[in-house]
Amino acid sequence: MSDPKPYTPPKVWTWEVPNGGEFASINRPISGATHQKALPEGRHPFQLYSMGTPNGVKVTVLFEELLAAGHPAEYDAWLIRIHKGDQFGSGFVEVNPNSKIPALLDRSGPEPVRVFESGAILLHLAEKFGAFLGRPEDRPALLSWLFWQMGSAPYLGGGFGHFYAYAPEKWQYPIDRFAMEVKRQLDVLNRHLADREWMVGDGMTIADIAIWPWYGNLVLGRQYNAGEFLDVASYTHVVDWARRIDARPAVRRGRMVNRTSGEPHERLLERHDASDFETRTEDRIGSKAAE
Amino acid sequence: MSDPKPYTPPKVWTWEVPNGGEFASINRPISGATHQKALPEGRHPFQLYSMGTPNGVKVTVLFEELLAAGHPAEYDAWLIRIHKGDQFGSGFVEVNPNSKIPALLDRSGPEPVRVFESGAILLHLAEKFGAFLGRPEDRPALLSWLFWQMGSAPYLGGGFGHFYAYAPEKWQYPIDRFAMEVKRQLDVLNRHLADREWMVGDGMTIADIAIWPWYGNLVLGRQYNAGEFLDVASYTHVVDWARRIDARPAVRRGRMVNRTSGEPHERLLERHDASDFETRTEDRIGSKAAE
Repeated sequence: MSDPKPYTPPKVWTWEVPNGGEFASINRPISGATHQKALPEGRHPFQLYSMGTPNGVKVTVLFEELLAAGHPAEYDAWLIRIHKGDQFGSGFVEVNPNSKIPALLDRSGPEPVRVFESGAILLHLAEKFGAFLGRPEDRPALLSWLFWQMGSAPYLGGGFGHFYAYAPEKWQYPIDRFAMEVKRQLDVLNRHLADREWMVGDGMTIADIAIWPWYGNLVLGRQYNAGEFLDVASYTHVVDWARRIDARPAVRRGRMVNRTSGEPHERLLERHDASDFETRTEDRIGSKAAE
Repeated sequence: MSDPKPYTPPKVWTWEVPNGGEFASINRPISGATHQKALPEGRHPFQLYSMGTPNGVKVTVLFEELLAAGHPAEYDAWLIRIHKGDQFGSGFVEVNPNSKIPALLDRSGPEPVRVFESGAILLHLAEKFGAFLGRPEDRPALLSWLFWQMGSAPYLGGGFGHFYAYAPEKWQYPIDRFAMEVKRQLDVLNRHLADREWMVGDGMTIADIAIWPWYGNLVLGRQYNAGEFLDVASYTHVVDWARRIDARPAVRRGRMVNRTSGEPHERLLERHDASDFETRTEDRIGSKAAE
């Protein structure tokens, strides 16, 4: 048990000390590019600039599910190494002025368009292909749960995950605060999934695809090493749903793309062709294009 | 300058101590209803259950803007007192299993539908009336900025606002962490608005309506008494944009609805008719219906 020591904030906040624990080097109080660097472009209509974090995985899972369902959603997935500051390159900032992954350049129409924020990319792609949206009557629920994920996950990632796993020290107040909220969110999902196979309607939608990389991976014990601490096994309906999604071949492929951690067979630093999953080699993993 | 004292988290988190500062009584690690209570329903097609927080104001501003533009968006706005736990009543949980305001019951179609999460409600209403969406070619930008708000504001509200204004003590690390992120977000907006009147396209959209109650009110010095601390005046383009929106009569009305703080002439606890803004009296403010 410990309470942090209080302090008196200054009148005006200034950028003085490194702050942010493991991610200190990439947290800044200003936006914009730090260096000139054009983005690479491949041959496919969709150019994704991302990394295999939960927000990145949402989009690669949707691309792989779209392709598996026969939609012409061929894409190039380029790795943005957020620890190295790739998101502050001038080309990336042009696609996403918010300097966060994932960011999409959609060249499938008459004019290239940029889309950023994972939820926006999911909705943009699902509407373009008319897929993974559920039935028309499901739309209010689809939007509700899609936005639920976007507004909830910052408490899991930027709140709980930061203070439990990444902050320079462990402090009780913020850990208690965010653990409580994350458990509440898991309980919301658990009650909702008690008598449903999918978040919305009778099939997988972008609501599942948005929620799964955060809350599905969490209950599968893959996030922040916090499975025991949050007693994730008690959310049995969420666990069942997460396993159902995890078993899908397209989801397994989507999880591999732009992934930088885990076993070699679990990751594909860049994806430019469906055959990349088969021909992936150690050599490719360390390819120049990915540096 | 102070660093909080570290502690060793237990193996399994348990709900022991009150946690949450000013909002301690309404933070829980479980979801669902705490008491039986049906929601009131009025005569209009749209039944809004909300409170005049930034997320609530998004929706009342959109309703007032829709009405001002001649759309049949008549609504009843019922007050949900979140400090008193109204969001845990059984009727509210049926509309929003996440127990957060705002929540909407849309009875304008053949079947009533529930919509929750402010971003989902904005998109649902804007699509229903074909209004405040910008031009078709603006849609990728509209979705990007709408989702940007949903994913960013938790760092302002649940992060910065909580630790700067509501937590039981002021601690440097979380305040620094979230102040830095909020300043970065303000800079993103400031650069974007440097040569634009509106967030997207050439007119006001739900992207402006989503962002304004959080970041507009912040730069106008109305949030967390943090204007000087965050040096909000330096984000001049955001200030100009915020004032432009603030001056709109529909926005002024929307800000009043379900508002529980501020001067009497600034608030209308419930809204059931356009004339309520004129006939509002002290008596009405304390009406039984609002208790």
